[in-house]
Amino acid sequence: MTLEQMKQELEKRLKPSRFRHSLGVAETAVKLAKRFGADEEQARVAGLLHDCAREFRNEDMVKEAEKRGIAIGEVERSMPLLLHADIGAVRVRELYGVEDPAISQAIARHTVGGPEMTVLDKIIWYADMIEPGRDFPGVDELRELGRTASLDAMLLAGLSHSIVFVVEKGHLIHPATVLARNEILLNQMKARQAEAKKED
Amino acid sequence: MTLEQMKQELEKRLKPSRFRHSLGVAETAVKLAKRFGADEEQARVAGLLHDCAREFRNEDMVKEAEKRGIAIGEVERSMPLLLHADIGAVRVRELYGVEDPAISQAIARHTVGGPEMTVLDKIIWYADMIEPGRDFPGVDELRELGRTASLDAMLLAGLSHSIVFVVEKGHLIHPATVLARNEILLNQMKARQAEAKKED
Repeated sequence: MTLEQMKQELEKRLKPSRFRHSLGVAETAVKLAKRFGADEEQARVAGLLHDCAREFRNEDMVKEAEKRGIAIGEVERSMPLLLHADIGAVRVRELYGVEDPAISQAIARHTVGGPEMTVLDKIIWYADMIEPGRDFPGVDELRELGRTASLDAMLLAGLSHSIVFVVEKGHLIHPATVLARNEILLNQMKARQAEAKKED
Repeated sequence: MTLEQMKQELEKRLKPSRFRHSLGVAETAVKLAKRFGADEEQARVAGLLHDCAREFRNEDMVKEAEKRGIAIGEVERSMPLLLHADIGAVRVRELYGVEDPAISQAIARHTVGGPEMTVLDKIIWYADMIEPGRDFPGVDELRELGRTASLDAMLLAGLSHSIVFVVEKGHLIHPATVLARNEILLNQMKARQAEAKKED
């Protein structure tokens, strides 16, 4: 499928506001890919299709996940909407002809994050948070970081914002989000220790 | 050892402010035990001794933990102060003659929480947060919950507060804290579902 065909297919399946959001994430992901020297086409396709499984209704997510052999954790069982990430990672292959596992992984992790996130994973996660259609307290600071900070500093701020938001909403925190944030902090600590050793 | 002897031993080993904090936690834990029909003596001893391993310096925590065969996770490795909870759980037996595993477990979990927390675990965790010497934004609301809310509602508010505090400090979040909070939320959901079924 060409990019234009993907867009047409997606537009038929998502409600207009979510389709616009998808275009915004694709556009923002390409900008971030340029800034960080990542593959722009991967970023564009992953950004465009990250929410493709939102064509399914919330009450069908568990069924759609089971149909595809996706393991359903305790957190997903009680918040089935989260499953659109894992379902989308399969859906891009079965409907949009996307065979790139890096794109599937970035889609699978775009909501709650995950361990050892790649540059593409991080770009899609962050683009989803700051695309031009997003409007929440703090989004402008996150957009500014998207222009100036390192990718890990961006993710740290974004994941922290997301965890606080989830706590304030009274929702479950996904362990993968905490893991992703802890990993960045631990890597920063290791880098600082290595730096301090060099200076000795 | 009698309670009086425990106090004397503890006072020799902790700095005055931490000893006063320990007396505060013991007193608050007894009040909570009365409110929730838990064993007051367990609450008093666990509260008094919860920080007994703070006699060790931060830089000695890893060594003291290893000496006692305590497994050191990645989070503890980079925040060794957290180990005072696990070390304290052993220390009460080796120095204060406390053989009660329920008290040891409550001490082990008093900082980051844990899975399937008992009533005593929860009481000590919460008493540590609201004892009269504590002073931080939001502590009065948590004290009010301590007089009025269910134990799980108290814990949910306390764990949520603790996670947001840790995020704002830029520290690692311990997975056990997230697990403890998620468990309470999941139990509340199950209870609501069971209630809804009864009404059908």
